[in-house]
Amino acid sequence: MQIAIVLYDRFTALDAVGPYETLCRLPDAETVFVAERTGPVRTDTGSLAFTADRTLDEVTAPDIVVVPGGPDPGTQMANTALLDWLRAADAASTWTTSVCTGSLLLGAAGLLKGRRATSHWLALDRLVPLGAEPTGERVVTDGKYVTAAGVSAGIDMGLTLLGRIAGDDHARTVQLATEYDPQPPYDAGSPQKAPGHIVARLREHSRLIVS
Amino acid sequence: MQIAIVLYDRFTALDAVGPYETLCRLPDAETVFVAERTGPVRTDTGSLAFTADRTLDEVTAPDIVVVPGGPDPGTQMANTALLDWLRAADAASTWTTSVCTGSLLLGAAGLLKGRRATSHWLALDRLVPLGAEPTGERVVTDGKYVTAAGVSAGIDMGLTLLGRIAGDDHARTVQLATEYDPQPPYDAGSPQKAPGHIVARLREHSRLIVS
Repeated sequence: MQIAIVLYDRFTALDAVGPYETLCRLPDAETVFVAERTGPVRTDTGSLAFTADRTLDEVTAPDIVVVPGGPDPGTQMANTALLDWLRAADAASTWTTSVCTGSLLLGAAGLLKGRRATSHWLALDRLVPLGAEPTGERVVTDGKYVTAAGVSAGIDMGLTLLGRIAGDDHARTVQLATEYDPQPPYDAGSPQKAPGHIVARLREHSRLIVS
Repeated sequence: MQIAIVLYDRFTALDAVGPYETLCRLPDAETVFVAERTGPVRTDTGSLAFTADRTLDEVTAPDIVVVPGGPDPGTQMANTALLDWLRAADAASTWTTSVCTGSLLLGAAGLLKGRRATSHWLALDRLVPLGAEPTGERVVTDGKYVTAAGVSAGIDMGLTLLGRIAGDDHARTVQLATEYDPQPPYDAGSPQKAPGHIVARLREHSRLIVS
């Protein structure tokens, strides 16, 4: 089984690493990080780069496709080389997945038409013109499409998919190995739970940075 | 404020990315990934590499030191170049932190003597001969030393430290921006919660791989 995790300029690191750290522990799985060009690809902060070991052209039929998000999805939603690859890879995949605004890239490739899907809470509305039906759930499975909410939700998505593919006990083993027993020191992880002034501040900030 | 995240061969990706994705959002912070040599550093699976942008020698007085773990801490616990750097960086730091078996490296550098600390649940006992007092808590703060339990606990550690440095509202803002509202599909993230046969399987496996 081959897992292809897509990298592009200004992706969000945890979006990619949540699914990676869980799915790479599938039995007999090969995980490959792919991008238009091989070599370092910088995250959204600029202070970290992941190495893409293979070009998109070299990975033509992954079993699982993982698309992370980033703070300026508009750039990649207009990247025809990436969208063409997503369509071709999806035609061969068993599972096509995303984290955060990665679902907007799947949508821009035309893959979420008529599908229930999720995204970062600040980007949910942007699924509608792409033909998807946004939901506020953390992990949404519709057929072979598994989309996750913002950034950290990729860990929950990875464990969910592990369970589907390799069984509940395997997923529980990976949860224990990664000691995923979350104890956030605050309870502000969703717009329903966070104080109103914090939600408002992030909404305003996102209007400034998102195209 | 400078945050130095230490990379070494076979580190665990999420150990580094949890603190990175939270702490990099500190106001006016510069985050640098450091290693003995610049360039790509492979994770424990071999299928992912992070770029180290600076050598240890180039980063002499970070405000925050972050040490991730990995499945074979013994190799780095005998790496005198790394341990020398940890001691020197710690002498200047405001906060010295670790995730997972990263605490064993701090301990091997002599930095946790008489301190309460934590580690991956499978490695807790190994803190004792290093002079530390192991605890089963997810995030342990003792003076300026903040240690986190296994792999995913670095997210909770990062948010905890954010709150201490920049205030509760800033930490809540980062929690909401990263949509950290965890909903694991299973409840097996600690040895107290996981089924006994899964705990036993991982204990046996760790005896085989850990030196």
